[in-house]
Amino acid sequence: MGAIRTIGVIGGGAWGTALALTAARSGSDVRLWARDPGIVSDIRSRRQNSRYLPGITFDEDLNATTSLEDVAGADALLLVTPAQTTRAMLAALKKTGRAQGPVVLCAKGIEQTSGKLLSKVLSEELPGAEAAVLSGPSFADDVARGLPTAVTVAASSAKTALSLCESMQSPCFRPYASIDILGAQIGGALKNVLAIACGAVVGRKLGASAQAALTARGFAELSRLGTAMGAQSETLTGLSGLGDLVLTCSSSQSRNFSFGLRLGEGFMASELISAGGKLAEGAYSARVAVKLGQKHDIDVPICETVARMIDEDLSIDDALNTLMARPLKPESEVV
Amino acid sequence: MGAIRTIGVIGGGAWGTALALTAARSGSDVRLWARDPGIVSDIRSRRQNSRYLPGITFDEDLNATTSLEDVAGADALLLVTPAQTTRAMLAALKKTGRAQGPVVLCAKGIEQTSGKLLSKVLSEELPGAEAAVLSGPSFADDVARGLPTAVTVAASSAKTALSLCESMQSPCFRPYASIDILGAQIGGALKNVLAIACGAVVGRKLGASAQAALTARGFAELSRLGTAMGAQSETLTGLSGLGDLVLTCSSSQSRNFSFGLRLGEGFMASELISAGGKLAEGAYSARVAVKLGQKHDIDVPICETVARMIDEDLSIDDALNTLMARPLKPESEVV
Repeated sequence: MGAIRTIGVIGGGAWGTALALTAARSGSDVRLWARDPGIVSDIRSRRQNSRYLPGITFDEDLNATTSLEDVAGADALLLVTPAQTTRAMLAALKKTGRAQGPVVLCAKGIEQTSGKLLSKVLSEELPGAEAAVLSGPSFADDVARGLPTAVTVAASSAKTALSLCESMQSPCFRPYASIDILGAQIGGALKNVLAIACGAVVGRKLGASAQAALTARGFAELSRLGTAMGAQSETLTGLSGLGDLVLTCSSSQSRNFSFGLRLGEGFMASELISAGGKLAEGAYSARVAVKLGQKHDIDVPICETVARMIDEDLSIDDALNTLMARPLKPESEVV
Repeated sequence: MGAIRTIGVIGGGAWGTALALTAARSGSDVRLWARDPGIVSDIRSRRQNSRYLPGITFDEDLNATTSLEDVAGADALLLVTPAQTTRAMLAALKKTGRAQGPVVLCAKGIEQTSGKLLSKVLSEELPGAEAAVLSGPSFADDVARGLPTAVTVAASSAKTALSLCESMQSPCFRPYASIDILGAQIGGALKNVLAIACGAVVGRKLGASAQAALTARGFAELSRLGTAMGAQSETLTGLSGLGDLVLTCSSSQSRNFSFGLRLGEGFMASELISAGGKLAEGAYSARVAVKLGQKHDIDVPICETVARMIDEDLSIDDALNTLMARPLKPESEVV
């Protein structure tokens, strides 16, 4: 495909708005779709998305709309709605007549009902579209404010990946091209499980050394499973894998990390849920990761421990004993 | 070699004391050498090392001494004196008659005068000894307090590595065996350079996304150079590599990170030095890393930028522009 001049961004949340700003800063012609007319008028009239990006006024004019038809014809589409709504959004997009061209998956996660990666969902719903993935360590707030950020942009052809990078890059936003669509989704799909574990270690006040060790062992687990699923190791050690894991496992801005914090403080998962708490995404992904581990014959002790904390109310101390009492093994083998 | 029952720890600083406590908790017969008689008597009479581990009273009795002869006969020796004193300590050890058996290098860094890894220094000074390395994400304070910690223990034979692990392990300290002595030293040698860069990003208030991206790109750099030098990739992604990097790049407890913070706040390296500040270890290692990169034909843009900030007073903003303005390249190639 040729140069990408027009970009349609689907999703008026924090991340969608931040990515629309990024594309605009790169000089692309951007149109942003949001379901909520209030957000559209806020962006149009006040250069703000005060609901999702409070306190930030954009330097850039953004062309926002509630009509999906208005954005569906762009050279490339960024799909930035929540992971679990991906299938429904793609079905809506199909109704507009959009059938081809790059669709960049910007949400992170696994479809909970099917255990499928989002690129698989895309291939089922819009088989003629060219799948692409944008992922990396990036808080929407940082990106919207123009702080320096680097992400992975993967597409099935290097040419499309580079065109997408060119249409998004600016001095503060640095996309790295990749052709490993599958690998670029692994980090985003699994990091939330590991963030729960890291949050629990911090909640239990076990120290920065334990948190760093768990991050490294968690990366080893993500890396083994990702490689078995067909990801390239360079992608896993890259921004969408290691980079995003480092960010999520160190910041209480993450809902998964915060959920883990409460588990580490001694709350049982069932208590947190019955208290009306919504389960964090990683709570579902933990079970999916365990199943993927079984399918590919890969040991995933950290994901398994998180799954047991959620499914069986395994306590934080029993969880730690399980992880620390494993037999001594060489580092290059399983944990 | 057979089971390790007696362990001599050389170095009465925070890390030496913490490792002596660890070995004692594992049931090993431990003797700790410290140069300072005040530290020896503090440990013996008050179960404290109030100079280096203030506020911590040990549950364990530690046998401390100022006589190197008293510890030199142990089955295994842990060398825990500062990296730049390694050669002198080994020469002193040689004078006691110690010539064989495992010597576990526990300091991190490169010999500044020669650019050599510490295992090379050991092979030159005590050629009959069996080189081993203990490294990983571990603040001495966390280890001394019995918080859970995991490290890599590498030796040239798997049998020695496992014997060392058995002589050190306890419910709160988990060593992973490795036979990659070279790889186990790379993380410790290079992480300080990258910690300066991460500190600078934080000092400049560039956000958590930038910090995570830099950690991931820094790891890619460390990994490329380490692989070219002969390290195994499993070691580099393990505790001594990635694990230690994550800890050092996220904590202001690190002197290198703090040095970077000041650079990020706008101070020039020459100002910090002429103000009487001692250069952080990573400031020297940056130049060594650049030379190693040239020798092995590996691009090390982050190390090079840190070296230029120190050698040429490159400003933080020019440093960032250098890193962010590099041409777009695939993630799997150089930065």
